[in-house]
Amino acid sequence: MSLLTVGSVAFDAIETPFGKTDKIIGGAATYISLASSYFVKDGKLVAVVGGDFPKSDIKLLENHGVNTEGLQIKENEKSFFWSGKYHNDMNSRDTLVTELNVLEYFDPIVPESYQGVEFLMLGNLAPTVQRTVIERLEKRPKLIVLDTMNFWMDIMLEELLKTLKLVDVLSINDEEARQLSGEYSLVKAAKKIMEMGPKTLIIKKGEHGALLFQNDNVFFAPALPLEEVFDPTGAGDSFAGGFIGYLAKTNDVSFNSMKKAIIYGSAMASFTVEKFGTERLVNLDKDDLEIRFQRFIDLVQLEAKI
Amino acid sequence: MSLLTVGSVAFDAIETPFGKTDKIIGGAATYISLASSYFVKDGKLVAVVGGDFPKSDIKLLENHGVNTEGLQIKENEKSFFWSGKYHNDMNSRDTLVTELNVLEYFDPIVPESYQGVEFLMLGNLAPTVQRTVIERLEKRPKLIVLDTMNFWMDIMLEELLKTLKLVDVLSINDEEARQLSGEYSLVKAAKKIMEMGPKTLIIKKGEHGALLFQNDNVFFAPALPLEEVFDPTGAGDSFAGGFIGYLAKTNDVSFNSMKKAIIYGSAMASFTVEKFGTERLVNLDKDDLEIRFQRFIDLVQLEAKI
Repeated sequence: MSLLTVGSVAFDAIETPFGKTDKIIGGAATYISLASSYFVKDGKLVAVVGGDFPKSDIKLLENHGVNTEGLQIKENEKSFFWSGKYHNDMNSRDTLVTELNVLEYFDPIVPESYQGVEFLMLGNLAPTVQRTVIERLEKRPKLIVLDTMNFWMDIMLEELLKTLKLVDVLSINDEEARQLSGEYSLVKAAKKIMEMGPKTLIIKKGEHGALLFQNDNVFFAPALPLEEVFDPTGAGDSFAGGFIGYLAKTNDVSFNSMKKAIIYGSAMASFTVEKFGTERLVNLDKDDLEIRFQRFIDLVQLEAKI
Repeated sequence: MSLLTVGSVAFDAIETPFGKTDKIIGGAATYISLASSYFVKDGKLVAVVGGDFPKSDIKLLENHGVNTEGLQIKENEKSFFWSGKYHNDMNSRDTLVTELNVLEYFDPIVPESYQGVEFLMLGNLAPTVQRTVIERLEKRPKLIVLDTMNFWMDIMLEELLKTLKLVDVLSINDEEARQLSGEYSLVKAAKKIMEMGPKTLIIKKGEHGALLFQNDNVFFAPALPLEEVFDPTGAGDSFAGGFIGYLAKTNDVSFNSMKKAIIYGSAMASFTVEKFGTERLVNLDKDDLEIRFQRFIDLVQLEAKI
């Protein structure tokens, strides 16, 4: 089934205890598009970059089968730029630089050829922009998934709440779920948030896995215990890409299908953190993915395989 | 199979955001004995209390089938007393009072009738005392499980390392695993710790579940997402009691059996935190336990039950 991803395509400069990068390709929509490309081809992209964005990076997306017709290039402007430094425990980071640049007045134009898309992934962006995309689709997609972060809860909560009413699945981390709901218990938080619009809630807990809530159902996807986390940048977006990619591929949005989807999402995130930026994510093959998926299954399997 | 538990039997005074208790029965061996009593009868206990310890509390243990022949009563001394206050997030606490009292010079006498015991659970205590019990058993038990905490790593590391060489399974939390190994990655930490003696390592992550390591095998038991954690006191000890109780009941110490055992341990911990102290743990029936065990299985099950 067809998939449209909206989000940032950007430059990141990353520093971890293991090293640092110059400006490399980053952004929520980049990670989502790359991760979902292992499930669906011709994934559609709505995003904006500046004239400084290398054609080779756009080519990278296209080589993964991403449809870049909706990628606006503002020749006289600069691309969104984020720079961050991870602490030794890799669980927290300081943002060093955020330059909105082209994102400041981003008008998300949906190409005519994108109309009729069945799956919509709204990567982290201003909730007003996310809502605009929903409004510009003539036919409501079968499934709308939204990812956001505490930043928008801090400065644009009302707009976020309006947008939440329009989506099917919300993906946030545990601290964000607590902030959005005002509840410390994630079970209570989930109940409150599912009354805000999304019928399904994913709570990402980083190295502690992810929870999937829908009605009274709950499913837990573990995280793989890793020897080393090299660079966590893009993990949450890769997770989202694997999640919606699997759903779009199977065209099955049942709770059972979503369980598998969050394991594929977790698998994608586990690859991303193994190297800097998108380096690992662009070099996967189908076998890697299936082997990794099976490791997640085995991790919680009571009976040993024969 | 026969089980011997060594550890503190004590008074706790607990304060949580939900209320506070006077001195109530607590201590590692109390929780372990109660939790394991749902799996094995005539669980043997080596511990010490003072003359101030209520006979009714000893009776409580006996009513759960605990063999208290090895429970020393020092009539002219006072019982070990711990008092703590949990913070609002329930994940951290301040110790308000620690009175060692009878534990200060605890000589763990093993009654003759306890000799030949097949499973030994060394609850959190001075590693010197834990080792003394191992040395006093004429025949080495089939399985020795040791629980300890950061306190002993801080003040008695050399003694702890000596004791670790003698045990099969070590149970500690994630921060303790990091402290003991000097590694942040739990995978790396596990490798180092398994070279210190124990061939099997359990890393407890509280609300984030527990990991079981043995050779190159790893298994993850999730924690149940709970609406409310009322009082975390004794959760780790209840976990240990469920773990060794299941192993002693089945007399199967294979890795596959240990997987089930840590889920039973997690189930026991999930009951304990629902009420103050031992209140919930003393009032379980077999059905409660099996239903709870199944909830843990379902939580990570890909295929829905029919």
